[in-house]
Amino acid sequence: MFQQEQEKKEDKNIEKKITPRAENYSQWYLDIIDAAELAEHSPVKGCMVIKPNGYAIWEKTQEVLNGWFKEKGVRNAYFPMFIPERFLEREKAHVEGFSPEVAVVTHAGGKKLDEPLIVRPTSETIMYEVFSTWIHSYRDLPLLINQWANVVRWEMRPRLFLRTVEFLWQEGHTVHATHDEADKFAREMLDVYVRFAREYMALPVLAGVKSESEKFAGALRTYSTEAMMQDGKALQFATSHNLGDNFAKSFNVKFLDENNKDVFAWQTSWGLSTRTIGALVMAHSDDVGLIIPPKMCYLNFVLIPIFKNEEEKEHVLRKANEIVDGAKKFGLSVHLDERDNMRPGEKFFYWEKCGIPMRIELGPKDIAKGQVILVRRDTSEKTPVGLVDLNETIKEMLIAIQQNLYDRAENLLKSRTKTVDLWVDFEKAIEGGNFVLAHFCGDANVEKEIKDKTGATIRCISFDTVEEKGKCIYTGKSSNKRVIFAKAY
Amino acid sequence: MFQQEQEKKEDKNIEKKITPRAENYSQWYLDIIDAAELAEHSPVKGCMVIKPNGYAIWEKTQEVLNGWFKEKGVRNAYFPMFIPERFLEREKAHVEGFSPEVAVVTHAGGKKLDEPLIVRPTSETIMYEVFSTWIHSYRDLPLLINQWANVVRWEMRPRLFLRTVEFLWQEGHTVHATHDEADKFAREMLDVYVRFAREYMALPVLAGVKSESEKFAGALRTYSTEAMMQDGKALQFATSHNLGDNFAKSFNVKFLDENNKDVFAWQTSWGLSTRTIGALVMAHSDDVGLIIPPKMCYLNFVLIPIFKNEEEKEHVLRKANEIVDGAKKFGLSVHLDERDNMRPGEKFFYWEKCGIPMRIELGPKDIAKGQVILVRRDTSEKTPVGLVDLNETIKEMLIAIQQNLYDRAENLLKSRTKTVDLWVDFEKAIEGGNFVLAHFCGDANVEKEIKDKTGATIRCISFDTVEEKGKCIYTGKSSNKRVIFAKAY
Repeated sequence: MFQQEQEKKEDKNIEKKITPRAENYSQWYLDIIDAAELAEHSPVKGCMVIKPNGYAIWEKTQEVLNGWFKEKGVRNAYFPMFIPERFLEREKAHVEGFSPEVAVVTHAGGKKLDEPLIVRPTSETIMYEVFSTWIHSYRDLPLLINQWANVVRWEMRPRLFLRTVEFLWQEGHTVHATHDEADKFAREMLDVYVRFAREYMALPVLAGVKSESEKFAGALRTYSTEAMMQDGKALQFATSHNLGDNFAKSFNVKFLDENNKDVFAWQTSWGLSTRTIGALVMAHSDDVGLIIPPKMCYLNFVLIPIFKNEEEKEHVLRKANEIVDGAKKFGLSVHLDERDNMRPGEKFFYWEKCGIPMRIELGPKDIAKGQVILVRRDTSEKTPVGLVDLNETIKEMLIAIQQNLYDRAENLLKSRTKTVDLWVDFEKAIEGGNFVLAHFCGDANVEKEIKDKTGATIRCISFDTVEEKGKCIYTGKSSNKRVIFAKAY
Repeated sequence: MFQQEQEKKEDKNIEKKITPRAENYSQWYLDIIDAAELAEHSPVKGCMVIKPNGYAIWEKTQEVLNGWFKEKGVRNAYFPMFIPERFLEREKAHVEGFSPEVAVVTHAGGKKLDEPLIVRPTSETIMYEVFSTWIHSYRDLPLLINQWANVVRWEMRPRLFLRTVEFLWQEGHTVHATHDEADKFAREMLDVYVRFAREYMALPVLAGVKSESEKFAGALRTYSTEAMMQDGKALQFATSHNLGDNFAKSFNVKFLDENNKDVFAWQTSWGLSTRTIGALVMAHSDDVGLIIPPKMCYLNFVLIPIFKNEEEKEHVLRKANEIVDGAKKFGLSVHLDERDNMRPGEKFFYWEKCGIPMRIELGPKDIAKGQVILVRRDTSEKTPVGLVDLNETIKEMLIAIQQNLYDRAENLLKSRTKTVDLWVDFEKAIEGGNFVLAHFCGDANVEKEIKDKTGATIRCISFDTVEEKGKCIYTGKSSNKRVIFAKAY
């Protein structure tokens, strides 16, 4: 009699199984992205389509970061996507780092171009060429610019969100009068990323400085935030670079200081990309589907009406609409799932896969009792809640879910961080999927040997690590600080 | 004694003159963009740098349109910027329209690509290839997608905001079960643009349908909004296309209807770009500088403190900060100009050029009287306003400024719209910079001849035009509706 009972399921996704994490972690990751409709591979090799559910996470990211950037005095702008090839060549380390992976426009408007244009892999070169014409005196400093843009790096082994030929990011670029001010600003922007990771993404990231081999091509120093995924591997969440005066010298970014002396400026750049969506997926989801931390989710809850006949349907939908209206007025974002070709159980399953933090089940019996059933996505816990103060209860529960996801991730990080002094233990700990705190002599060749043998790289030298005498895990040479080794995405 | 008196002006812009409109309208436009620091040409020919003041107008645009799009059920997504060349070729009219102006990536990752990739000039082809895999049944419809993105069209005569090789826009793409639903949706989205133009940009745009020669490459019908600039020329503000099933047939966008029959879908696309910033500039500014309609401005007012010595400075700045804090709490966006190397008069001039709707002057005498001086950007009117209810007064004045800009533009439109029946009058009216309502026989060759002779094109056939018997202005053949001819940007 009812459509949901008569019609066969049309949503093919419902029948797709998600590979369990324990069975195949990589496949699990892709299955989650597919099931939650976040993104998919496009007809253009290496490029992805970010679907509305995935893009909504990016919009939250933009909203939060834009607010904080603006508090710091940073203003958004937009620079050309095309960069003359010769610009890239001006900063030696930069061209070495990026030229193997650029895409090149050679023809346009039906003609061969006089000079090929590369599609930006990052915008230091084009921006600083322009900055050099904007900055004349110390009064023009600091210059604090951010850009939301697409960038292109030719990736041979694409992986949705983590490595794609084209991705979206924000790139901040600032110019300062002194090295110390630039360094301080780079650190402050890293703090912004750390705060975003912890408070919004529910990720207890580590923050520190990169080793020489891992720093950004052209930077003096790279600061980084690193998150742990559920398999114990690291994911670089965002980075902030103290560029020193390297680019200033290549692009002639100079200013007249207070003593009327013409001097080079000091610069920073800092970025966060759509790969953070990959981090969100891998850090929080389970074998049922995606789990989005409430503060990153486009919906606070979905309401699923339950009824057996037309009379009940009318009764339940009337109440459901009341609840939805009330919640919206309260400031919550809600979706009422009225699809008539799916049974309630299928809807539960659908929204669990999509990672919405909470669902509300509402049937005639609940209405009679003046209650709804709240179901948490993170714990599957079901709680009957009275209609009075419902919105307050939802709000509190969202805060509890956000905290629980953070706590889970923090427990994982703690349990999978090992302090190690012997090479044999080091190899075992890396193999087992851990962050490994070990002494290191600082030699880039040794770093490379360790990477070749174990697959682990130095993720960062954490700001929290205390100085202590020790011996390099590989060479036995003296060291005064442990660094964090891990395999990484 | 004070820095502002001792130091010479460092901001070079202060000394630059704005060419009067009457002298050279084109140069005036560029001078305004320069003086208000909206954008500049980049080192890459044809590409522009959108500076923070210009980008802030785009951010307002995004904020307003995103809200309205979401109310319509449209969701944002992101599709690859690269499109395989063969995709473009599938829709015949589309490839003819766009292939002369595309940029082509032939090399990437250090190798020649097997198939060249074009940089999107618009995304119909890549999106609809993907849509065809998303849509199976009538239950998947309507599909309502929007994308904020950069696009590239190789322009030989670039002009800031109006025609640049790369520009920013939003492109909406929807799929429907019937032609009528698609047509209705395309019209609704045009209404969204009309509302944005009128309520936010203070532009009394005309809305109508494009002639066959002026419609989008691949569309069944193009709806358009046209704004009048101060020189009487038209600027196409935004367009919305009923694509019919043209693309559906080329990209196999099909669905099972309610009778289980496999049928082609009906589509729309609609877009608004950064060229609307050019429209804002040309419609409202004067010989002093830019004028931004208050609802499009990142600042509601600037506060300029006036003082003669340290004691007064401290006194005035204390009060100024109080006013700023109060205004911010009230929800206004404010900037306190504390620069100590500029005299108040220079600051007035600076912010007038930047087009901020209102300034507040505050000196010791004002404080003694418990007042501030409000100065409107649009009329230069100065009004002493008591500190009690200051924010309410500001709010009302902003509404009045917004309305005044609209009224001015509407008066211009009325005074420069001519109804004409003789060819000699037509030529004169076009030459004088007017929108000309004239009868037209509908022949595309005639349209072209008129364009060649006068430079005028059919901007649209307005929805407001009533049917009436008449004779074509050029051929004398019978016609039942007047169309709008004008020269256009």
